[in-house]
Amino acid sequence: MDKPYRPQLTRASRPLTFTVEARNERGEVLPTDIAGEHPLTLYVDKREIVTLMTLGAAPEALALGYLRNQRLVNSIEEILAVQVDWEVNSVVVTTRSGLADLDGRMEKRTVTTGCGQGTVFGELMDEIESIRLPDDVSITEAAFYGLIDSVRRHETIYKQAGAVHGCALARDSELLMFVEDVGRHNAVDAIAGQMWLDRIDGADKVFYTTGRLTSEMVIKCAQMGIPILASRSGLTQMGYEVAQKTGITMLGRATGKHYLLFTGHHRFKKT
Amino acid sequence: MDKPYRPQLTRASRPLTFTVEARNERGEVLPTDIAGEHPLTLYVDKREIVTLMTLGAAPEALALGYLRNQRLVNSIEEILAVQVDWEVNSVVVTTRSGLADLDGRMEKRTVTTGCGQGTVFGELMDEIESIRLPDDVSITEAAFYGLIDSVRRHETIYKQAGAVHGCALARDSELLMFVEDVGRHNAVDAIAGQMWLDRIDGADKVFYTTGRLTSEMVIKCAQMGIPILASRSGLTQMGYEVAQKTGITMLGRATGKHYLLFTGHHRFKKT
Repeated sequence: MDKPYRPQLTRASRPLTFTVEARNERGEVLPTDIAGEHPLTLYVDKREIVTLMTLGAAPEALALGYLRNQRLVNSIEEILAVQVDWEVNSVVVTTRSGLADLDGRMEKRTVTTGCGQGTVFGELMDEIESIRLPDDVSITEAAFYGLIDSVRRHETIYKQAGAVHGCALARDSELLMFVEDVGRHNAVDAIAGQMWLDRIDGADKVFYTTGRLTSEMVIKCAQMGIPILASRSGLTQMGYEVAQKTGITMLGRATGKHYLLFTGHHRFKKT
Repeated sequence: MDKPYRPQLTRASRPLTFTVEARNERGEVLPTDIAGEHPLTLYVDKREIVTLMTLGAAPEALALGYLRNQRLVNSIEEILAVQVDWEVNSVVVTTRSGLADLDGRMEKRTVTTGCGQGTVFGELMDEIESIRLPDDVSITEAAFYGLIDSVRRHETIYKQAGAVHGCALARDSELLMFVEDVGRHNAVDAIAGQMWLDRIDGADKVFYTTGRLTSEMVIKCAQMGIPILASRSGLTQMGYEVAQKTGITMLGRATGKHYLLFTGHHRFKKT
């Protein structure tokens, strides 16, 4: 079998933690690890698109996933190269034949916030109407507990320095990818980018995030075609509404052997 | 004394929590409170600026603080009215004489992410070079513990529904304002807006956030002229660097009677 097409990629990750001194309540001066945070400006065919503030663990996948989740690029085959240069804090994406109507899309772009990114929010909300997630997949409670435990054991930067969110892609209890970043949206995007590169389909997967289940998080998961979404945190009303609309299976407050199952009960099996 | 000028304001807050059903690991169906999340599109003189995803507790102050912190409006006197209409999820700001060079500013705007907003990041970094925070203010450890305890007792939405961040403005241990929102940047902006409305100076205040101390958070605090910044969470490398550059007093991991003092030691007194 031929290997699937891959754009040319740098592999330019940054040191993920730094040590600084802090004084605690007992007056002790302690070396304290803190998470890296770097501006990374994304250019597509020489046009500046966005500056992402990132931990810098997987900048190439992050750039790809950003373009994918923002619907600025339709397929990985359109991309020739992704080149990160930390000397100038830039990631340069070169496309095969330019992005169709990039000016129009950038102009229409509404910046959304609330710990959110700049997304074409209205368009994404339209898009979710057409999303159909597979109903013939499920996860057992035992596998789910296994997944929560795997995530707990993988959270390296969080345990060391805090101040990051983690996202994982799993099949049953098996972690396939785990990405941490200073923003929860960057961590999701990096996973979306890596899924593109490795031609991984979301249909039989579970997506886990340490962050809250806001509308944008649920929309992104549905966009990636992943039918089961779990978080250790809580959710918002719009996150709940989007989960209902897309029929996604959504679990919150998942830690240890506790969880709250909010939507899509049919994909979660007690035994 | 004359009352200070105030723009015309609606007072259009939204219901902050909603109850949905969730099934827990024991198979029990529990009514569960979740935080509200609403899109709110900001228009200035009929021009669309941004869509903020917000809890909706203080939308007028949020809109004002966004315009203040993004440096789109220079003084509260420029603003005639702030009108929120939840029927169409909009907040309409009317200015006295239009915003100078709004087109140019919007064009130059770089969208930054990483749980960040769209900010003129480069310009803000330039601006912090010129910020001078007062050195003749301080907080005692006892007052600081009192503040942490006040915040803990005020976190209503977080305790009830989670999925929000809280920000507080304090003088010693006295809470002057407390705002929760789905995004930590919205909570900061709402406080900045309220400070503008009430003509509150930041120079002798403490700013507290439940969220992480990333670069944008430290920049905003310094912009508001507040010399002491504390969080229950951790910090990032850029947050640390900005704190050093601005000379702000920054404390992380502040819970109960624990804290880590990172920068600006001279404003924090053990006794």
